[in-house]
Amino acid sequence: MTHEITVIPGDGIGQEVTPAAVEVLEALEIDFEFHEAEAGDHVAEETGEALPEETYDLAASTDATLFGAAGETAADVILPLREAVDSFVNVRPAKAYPGVDALRPETDLVFLRENTEGVYSGHEDRLSDDLSTLTRVVTTSASERLAEFACDFVEDGEYDGFHIAHKANVMRETDGRFRDAVLEVADDRGVQTEEVLMDAFATHVCLDPTQFDVVACPNLAGDVLSDLAAGLVGGLGMLPSANVGPDRGLFEPVHGSAPDIAGEGVANPAATIISAAMLLEYLGHDEEGQAVRDAVEGVLEDGPRTPDLGGDASTEDVTAAILERL
Amino acid sequence: MTHEITVIPGDGIGQEVTPAAVEVLEALEIDFEFHEAEAGDHVAEETGEALPEETYDLAASTDATLFGAAGETAADVILPLREAVDSFVNVRPAKAYPGVDALRPETDLVFLRENTEGVYSGHEDRLSDDLSTLTRVVTTSASERLAEFACDFVEDGEYDGFHIAHKANVMRETDGRFRDAVLEVADDRGVQTEEVLMDAFATHVCLDPTQFDVVACPNLAGDVLSDLAAGLVGGLGMLPSANVGPDRGLFEPVHGSAPDIAGEGVANPAATIISAAMLLEYLGHDEEGQAVRDAVEGVLEDGPRTPDLGGDASTEDVTAAILERL
Ligand SMILES: CC(C)[C@H](C(=O)O)[C@@H](O)C(=O)O
Ligand SMILES: CC(C)[C@H](C(=O)O)[C@@H](O)C(=O)O
Repeated sequence: MTHEITVIPGDGIGQEVTPAAVEVLEALEIDFEFHEAEAGDHVAEETGEALPEETYDLAASTDATLFGAAGETAADVILPLREAVDSFVNVRPAKAYPGVDALRPETDLVFLRENTEGVYSGHEDRLSDDLSTLTRVVTTSASERLAEFACDFVEDGEYDGFHIAHKANVMRETDGRFRDAVLEVADDRGVQTEEVLMDAFATHVCLDPTQFDVVACPNLAGDVLSDLAAGLVGGLGMLPSANVGPDRGLFEPVHGSAPDIAGEGVANPAATIISAAMLLEYLGHDEEGQAVRDAVEGVLEDGPRTPDLGGDASTEDVTAAILERL
Repeated sequence: MTHEITVIPGDGIGQEVTPAAVEVLEALEIDFEFHEAEAGDHVAEETGEALPEETYDLAASTDATLFGAAGETAADVILPLREAVDSFVNVRPAKAYPGVDALRPETDLVFLRENTEGVYSGHEDRLSDDLSTLTRVVTTSASERLAEFACDFVEDGEYDGFHIAHKANVMRETDGRFRDAVLEVADDRGVQTEEVLMDAFATHVCLDPTQFDVVACPNLAGDVLSDLAAGLVGGLGMLPSANVGPDRGLFEPVHGSAPDIAGEGVANPAATIISAAMLLEYLGHDEEGQAVRDAVEGVLEDGPRTPDLGGDASTEDVTAAILERL
């Protein structure tokens, strides 16, 4: 069976790290057909639209999409792409790799971020010259879908349970609904849960990240708390992510287009290559996914390093070293 | 002139740290009249209401309120109290003190948190069995009021300018309004500003907190990001805060009621006593405020320590040491 993969390098270092990840996928004994597609600032500048319809349609019809990064237009690209794959959960591991300088080297977390609603549902109104509103949406159905995923994730990964981070003491009806729905599913499934307020989580994860492993949260909480965890493991450069939908997925590093180093060929490809490992696992190629992870971790530990990790290797050097270990 | 001060110890360690701060205030040559008032879980258990009307009325009529902590009912107590003093900004310094074990000892930040709207405006609706909404409110007037305060704060403190943390790439209309209003005021006042997305801030403040000093943000962003900063300076135990209104203020440690250690007499009074220093400064007693800060910092550096800071001193020991230095 051929897997159809949309590849969207996007802007800046996306143009460097995405081809590196494709090289890694191509090195495996798996039948892929790659469809390269355009998106990002450079497309918007030419055509006025950051996300061409062809790109959206490809993402919405292929088995998986690998996305690099977008610049100023990131929200115009990423949010519709998540919708194109009907993604209901954004899986964001934040792990400190051996050999990588991290504020909290013991960090090993996975955020399961609700990926369709919350403040991202996008209903905003300008009600007067002085006043604007945003309608934050929370449904039981989306919360349950996330909870089922979280339970599967905990069972598959043999975790003890998961945390639910929310702000239901203030957003009583909406985050209350989220919390209650998640708790009920977990309870039915016999999966242990513990609640934590999102603000308290922010303090406690700094003080001792080993208190947590899997953390399910509403959309914006997942956005901010996973970026916080990135700060504990040495920066966004190391974080992969999977936007999981029922039939297809979108895989992207959490970092942006890094215009300051774009074009120099020194971008760290690790997050994108681990995102490709998540793509492999999503498509059922667990063994190859693990092999890619092992190769990346090996190189991070004692292989060539890009400047962000204190080395002077190029993206190509690092990719070659990863390919060699595969 | 006598300053009328409402004192609300609240629950748990609030009952221990609040009297400590009052003792410090009483030691100064300033004419205070203290009005002790009730609030919190223990009141709710007795009367069904966490915040008695008398307490609200006192906070709404005295010059300043010193609040300790509340347990489960925190939101029912703190949010109305902030309203009672008509507070439009929550000033939250997060500073690592010499001698206190901190993840990032170089942290020295002040959050200026919008204190009236955002998701805290509290309009939630249960629209169906599946769907609830929350109406997030942002006004130009509240944003401008915060911005004027931020500009004064920057000028008084001789800071270079301030950061504006927001999520206007997603909440375009509401956080866009917030950002534009703040930028315009700062521009008119000739105060430098820099924008940062709240998620990016979460990463960058971990990597290098010295990039930031004053950070203005919407309500929930300020809640989460200041708690994150608490994690960098060694925990919530060290964070004071001032809820500033035009005519009165509410001063409270950022920490909670800590039921695990309540009643043992070992709660760290530092955050509450520094909150009392902020109260002094709010009332125009800058010199005394500074004296209290100096005394607390001196004791933190080489005086007795409560168990949270690795010592075995009691709240009383620490308070006595602070009083001695005054
Ligand atoms: C670019 C932005 C819309 C996006 C988000 O908020 O989800 C980004 O921060 C992320 O986390 O992938
Ligand atoms: C208790 C809660 C309502 C409150 C808030 O969210 O503002 C608290 O977290 C705080 O930061 O003072």
